[in-house]
Amino acid sequence: MEIKGGLLKAIKEKVEYTSVEITPDDSEVLVDLKASSLNRRDLWIQEGKYAKIRLPCIVGSDGSGIYDGREVILLPSMKWGSSASHQSTDFEVLGMPHHGCCAEKIAIRPEYIFDKPSHLTHLEAASLPLSGLTAWRALMTQGQAKPDQKILITGIGGGVAGFVLLFAVAHGMEVYVTSSSDNKIARSVALGAVGGENYRNPESYTNLTKAASGFDVIIDSAGGGDFHKLLKIANPGARIVQYGGTQGAMDGISPQILFWKQLTIKGSTMGTREEFANMLEFINLHRLRPCIDKVFPLSEVNQAFDYMKSGSHFGKIVLDHS
Amino acid sequence: MEIKGGLLKAIKEKVEYTSVEITPDDSEVLVDLKASSLNRRDLWIQEGKYAKIRLPCIVGSDGSGIYDGREVILLPSMKWGSSASHQSTDFEVLGMPHHGCCAEKIAIRPEYIFDKPSHLTHLEAASLPLSGLTAWRALMTQGQAKPDQKILITGIGGGVAGFVLLFAVAHGMEVYVTSSSDNKIARSVALGAVGGENYRNPESYTNLTKAASGFDVIIDSAGGGDFHKLLKIANPGARIVQYGGTQGAMDGISPQILFWKQLTIKGSTMGTREEFANMLEFINLHRLRPCIDKVFPLSEVNQAFDYMKSGSHFGKIVLDHS
Repeated sequence: MEIKGGLLKAIKEKVEYTSVEITPDDSEVLVDLKASSLNRRDLWIQEGKYAKIRLPCIVGSDGSGIYDGREVILLPSMKWGSSASHQSTDFEVLGMPHHGCCAEKIAIRPEYIFDKPSHLTHLEAASLPLSGLTAWRALMTQGQAKPDQKILITGIGGGVAGFVLLFAVAHGMEVYVTSSSDNKIARSVALGAVGGENYRNPESYTNLTKAASGFDVIIDSAGGGDFHKLLKIANPGARIVQYGGTQGAMDGISPQILFWKQLTIKGSTMGTREEFANMLEFINLHRLRPCIDKVFPLSEVNQAFDYMKSGSHFGKIVLDHS
Repeated sequence: MEIKGGLLKAIKEKVEYTSVEITPDDSEVLVDLKASSLNRRDLWIQEGKYAKIRLPCIVGSDGSGIYDGREVILLPSMKWGSSASHQSTDFEVLGMPHHGCCAEKIAIRPEYIFDKPSHLTHLEAASLPLSGLTAWRALMTQGQAKPDQKILITGIGGGVAGFVLLFAVAHGMEVYVTSSSDNKIARSVALGAVGGENYRNPESYTNLTKAASGFDVIIDSAGGGDFHKLLKIANPGARIVQYGGTQGAMDGISPQILFWKQLTIKGSTMGTREEFANMLEFINLHRLRPCIDKVFPLSEVNQAFDYMKSGSHFGKIVLDHS
């Protein structure tokens, strides 16, 4: 079957909006996609900074659409396997090697199809799956977040960090953020954060300690040379969850702080279908709306990529397929 | 009341076997101590490398003796507080600032008194409390150890590592060790370890990976520049527990390995009274006997300190009070 979609033909090439031949296998059904969204993962694949790249492939891990008359969204975590603690060696993320969601239709197994939260538009729902699931697992499963606890979210502005903010506020936590942008900090406060610090300010860690006196949960996507400072502003028994490594290797971590405070540093990526279902239940219960930064038509998928590269967004970059 | 015991009068002084005046308060009872044992903590206090040192004080966190006609051992974890995840700010370890166990008697609250495992001598029982409890929490609570899982214990030879070995073998795990001493590795194998590697051998990590293919639990007391290699030989979902930092800060930790493998790095120190009770139940059930390296008479407590400093011991250094 011929469909139109955003095809990445090779590493370092532009994504091309073009006709692609897809052939569903016997286990797959066709979903009409109404919206999709981009993730940093899509950029990494385009830049060749991802493991086991197999191209050409339609990009996009996040989709919302219609299947069998139902409004649905798709679980992007494929072949996770049987262990809740980690994914299997067969694990794949939707949108490479399996054709992704930036297209008119997708052929996918029914087990990856979930009911769309009815209070959300397709554009909002399409912004949920990958970032929301990653945020949910990092916050709730690995971070063991509880109401009234204090949480620090580093590098606010990215998709996952935005969902951590959304969920943590709804969960009744006291939320602080860091960013290199004062504007993003102000927007976080408008969305329910108590405060934030610009990490380019050398006093930022001192200020955070003064403001919050210490954090029970820290959700970090940076790693790098400043990561060890997070241990100092963590409360005894705190969980520091790491889901990204934009700043590279972590140095200077004190074993004495780690063991005397009984801290947990926990790596997290994606999530299970049970976590996805729990996240959707939470979103329905609290009638949460994801934060969309900008909408492009599907045919401008390449312009959407360029916009994501600029890094100035706050919230998700969504493609409208209508 | 006048008793004889090992008194440390000031930092960097020798422990002196001498008469000490103790005055139980209304909440305390007197226990006749039959045996005690040394821990690296006692050395650190003597060397001034411990927080909040208050001297003079009778040394020793571990004691076995008689109270009210019962054979008892003492919980060294005092004022832990109400949270299982971490100790309170009031937390103390028995043997500074509270007078310790290297003495004829101790005045202590009844809540710290537990029945001695009946299959153990006082000398064996006195080697249990601090090291055993630290090992139990690190292995069972923080490490979530399960039978048939593969475990690596780094730096075998110390008191805690020895108890991790004892418990892990009894728990039905596949145990590997590292040491700088081939002799200590051979002794570990005699005690039930499957294998071990001398970490001075540059091929040791490669050999461990070949032998075990990957570890589900790693119990480390070193930290330092080689710690990041432990992440590479950990299985997905593994727990790496850190209870000491003899090699200093940890560098070069890859966030990508951490989050993609969904690893947990967990600091651990001492343990709760529930963990102490569970440990004693496990020791009784499996009729485990701690590994004693050498016994000194209480009056030679200072010679016992010197022997511990030499670092050549395998198992516990115990003082006989009879």
